[in-house]
Amino acid sequence: MAERIDFEALSETIEQSLKNRDFGKIRSMFTAMEPVDIAIILGEADSRRLPILFRILPKELAAETFVEMDSEEQELLINAFSERELKDVVDELFVDDAVDIIEEMPANVVKRILRHTDPETRNTINEILRYPKDSAGSIMTTEYVSLKPGMTVSDAFDRIRKTGVDKETIYICYVTGTDRKLLGLVSVRELLLSPYNTIIDTIMEKNIISVETTEDKEAVANKFDKYDFMSLPVVDTENRLVGIVTFDDAIDVIQEEHTEDIQKMSAVQPTDESYFKTSVLKHAKNRMLWLLLLMLSATITGSILESYEAAFTAMPVLVAFVPMLMGTGGNCGAQSSTMIIRGLALDEIRPKDILRVMFKEVRIALIVGVVLAAVNTIRIFIMYRAENPVYLSVVSGISLIGTAVIAKMLGGALPVLAKVCKLDPALMSSPIITTIVDACSVIIFFNVATIVMSWGL
Amino acid sequence: MAERIDFEALSETIEQSLKNRDFGKIRSMFTAMEPVDIAIILGEADSRRLPILFRILPKELAAETFVEMDSEEQELLINAFSERELKDVVDELFVDDAVDIIEEMPANVVKRILRHTDPETRNTINEILRYPKDSAGSIMTTEYVSLKPGMTVSDAFDRIRKTGVDKETIYICYVTGTDRKLLGLVSVRELLLSPYNTIIDTIMEKNIISVETTEDKEAVANKFDKYDFMSLPVVDTENRLVGIVTFDDAIDVIQEEHTEDIQKMSAVQPTDESYFKTSVLKHAKNRMLWLLLLMLSATITGSILESYEAAFTAMPVLVAFVPMLMGTGGNCGAQSSTMIIRGLALDEIRPKDILRVMFKEVRIALIVGVVLAAVNTIRIFIMYRAENPVYLSVVSGISLIGTAVIAKMLGGALPVLAKVCKLDPALMSSPIITTIVDACSVIIFFNVATIVMSWGL
Repeated sequence: MAERIDFEALSETIEQSLKNRDFGKIRSMFTAMEPVDIAIILGEADSRRLPILFRILPKELAAETFVEMDSEEQELLINAFSERELKDVVDELFVDDAVDIIEEMPANVVKRILRHTDPETRNTINEILRYPKDSAGSIMTTEYVSLKPGMTVSDAFDRIRKTGVDKETIYICYVTGTDRKLLGLVSVRELLLSPYNTIIDTIMEKNIISVETTEDKEAVANKFDKYDFMSLPVVDTENRLVGIVTFDDAIDVIQEEHTEDIQKMSAVQPTDESYFKTSVLKHAKNRMLWLLLLMLSATITGSILESYEAAFTAMPVLVAFVPMLMGTGGNCGAQSSTMIIRGLALDEIRPKDILRVMFKEVRIALIVGVVLAAVNTIRIFIMYRAENPVYLSVVSGISLIGTAVIAKMLGGALPVLAKVCKLDPALMSSPIITTIVDACSVIIFFNVATIVMSWGL
Repeated sequence: MAERIDFEALSETIEQSLKNRDFGKIRSMFTAMEPVDIAIILGEADSRRLPILFRILPKELAAETFVEMDSEEQELLINAFSERELKDVVDELFVDDAVDIIEEMPANVVKRILRHTDPETRNTINEILRYPKDSAGSIMTTEYVSLKPGMTVSDAFDRIRKTGVDKETIYICYVTGTDRKLLGLVSVRELLLSPYNTIIDTIMEKNIISVETTEDKEAVANKFDKYDFMSLPVVDTENRLVGIVTFDDAIDVIQEEHTEDIQKMSAVQPTDESYFKTSVLKHAKNRMLWLLLLMLSATITGSILESYEAAFTAMPVLVAFVPMLMGTGGNCGAQSSTMIIRGLALDEIRPKDILRVMFKEVRIALIVGVVLAAVNTIRIFIMYRAENPVYLSVVSGISLIGTAVIAKMLGGALPVLAKVCKLDPALMSSPIITTIVDACSVIIFFNVATIVMSWGL
């Protein structure tokens, strides 16, 4: 039961059945599968075969599978659909899925889709499309069960039975008053455990956590993580219920935000396309800007290094320490910035904590720096016995500790500062911090080298 | 309604009410709040006040809040509890929450907790504790609604009404045959939309996706992401139903795994403690191992660099290009490895794709490299007009392209190779790749410099 699906074997069987025109076999294979898995199979099929395979699906499963497909394949299918087929699929869509699909389609396809929606749905779709990208409004659906406070439990079940089939979730019902003002919520669990003549008003939960339409979708997803809700009501500024967000959308947002954070943290412009779907040129473009900026910044470090020409031509062994110092500084800074960026994202660290963070990072840096310097000294006494091990150990040890402290302070402070300035903390990640720390480490190293030289070690 | 909770103001009011011994006020404040928010307030309270505040909570809310608290505070409370109070809390716990708490407690506290559970629950807890860490079995709960295939919808509702109050979810009911073999599932939605005399067997979903007890919890969480399930059945090797995992646990796993990935990717040993709860010494320890390894590896780059002493003492300007080349190589590699690590985590990239990945990365690297080389040439003609701009441009341009290609090939291939070797791809992240690429870039640069020199440019 729990085995992994073997997509390659399945594709092969389908290929074979298509050749034999054994559509019944394909149909029974598909009906035993989840829509998202069918979408994967269809996505790997030849694009000429796609409409044929899609038409084998029973109507409802077809619509569910359609939602899970990539936008390219959706477009291909819509262009192959008759008006009747398009209407069948559009009729089965939840509003939020319809919006997601429409957002990715060219104008002529959008027009064709909207022609097949009833006027009310069309209005709702247009309304949702108007909410800012990444807002709660843009990811919500309007298909929820709404109850009135004066209803009985029995009335509530009648209403769920009558209207529930089209709702994204029926398990949390929202109780609204006049003007759609949100008054409370009641779960089907509560309804099932209450006598049929109980008045909703007496059992509904009145302390409700809701989100506003304009709230950032990441904040919405964090509320799901924190409170373990199955759905969250979305209200306008007047506390009127306009929609709901369900946990599965929250999981999608969490995954998207992770991908985005990780991309920003390694200096890639975020994209929500998958790796193979993105063209080589697009990949290059997404990575180019930061590489250029960082390359030009790194030339400053180069110029600084060059300015110590006198020192390293007199004592070329010094150059051997530069990669180690720059590397360690970069790694120290990356460690700190990562911990802080993640802490900020999970709301464990807040902007007011900046001094606490820096104080903690300095202490960590001192411990780390001293241990690194000690190990480095041992290494020097093994590798550079013939040169001046005491001098080299003192210079590189002091530089290691200094670099670690600066790197960890910057790594700790910059993400928090970014947050204070309403920027995404993930931008202050390893590549930027590494570039800054590189320059610092070179300056520290050659200055320490000069000063210690003057001590006559 | 949707406003942010002002924890500081709340804490202040509570402080004041405690002084006035106005416990009623605190109680009514708390009852209007979510358990997780109360836990935050209690967590920030003075540890002597914690038991007093906790005792103000109504019984059920107290248990719900207890689950959300940090283990330190849970331990503190348990030690302050009377036997009666402890029993009240333990009685209300779901089995999976009880397991989570027990895992963090010292042996004497565990004994006290187990003394208050009934023998059946104690057996279940011990069973769950035996499943390997990070397995589906270790995060599941045994509190689900189970139905028999011969029941009617009306029987099913009776059963839900009778047993549902203690279940973690009632919305998905699992249908089992003899020996607890999993036969199907039916949702409360389906039950509500079916006539009362319908036989469960005729409406239950029989194609079920389940997980085995030993399956990795990350794979379980990915199933929730993919299929949008509310809960997933956990079965043993004989397909007997032993528990369920619910979506809220899956969200927790997704967040934990992401934190772990991010930490590994910046060379920090993963920890699930929050930033401030972790001591300075522990932080230093978690970061030390990788820093040491990477520092020692970087000395190899240093030695390589030193071996080109003749070249850079003859032409010190060459040294100015080293930080830029090393930095760009590191950034190129980090970009690629990040994209691949994330793609592997989301199952968009599979081990068999390794050649496709490398071919794609090489093409991206060539485009990126050529653009970087072009911009670099402009910079050289501005900054180094007096020296030998043609020579420097050709040498650094070829080196940039070569470094980009190697960095992106390694960044693309190493995470996939790690996956093939059953290692975590996140280990092959920027710090390791940067260290390898640093050495390569130095070798490329000085060799190119020597060869181009021989052309007499």
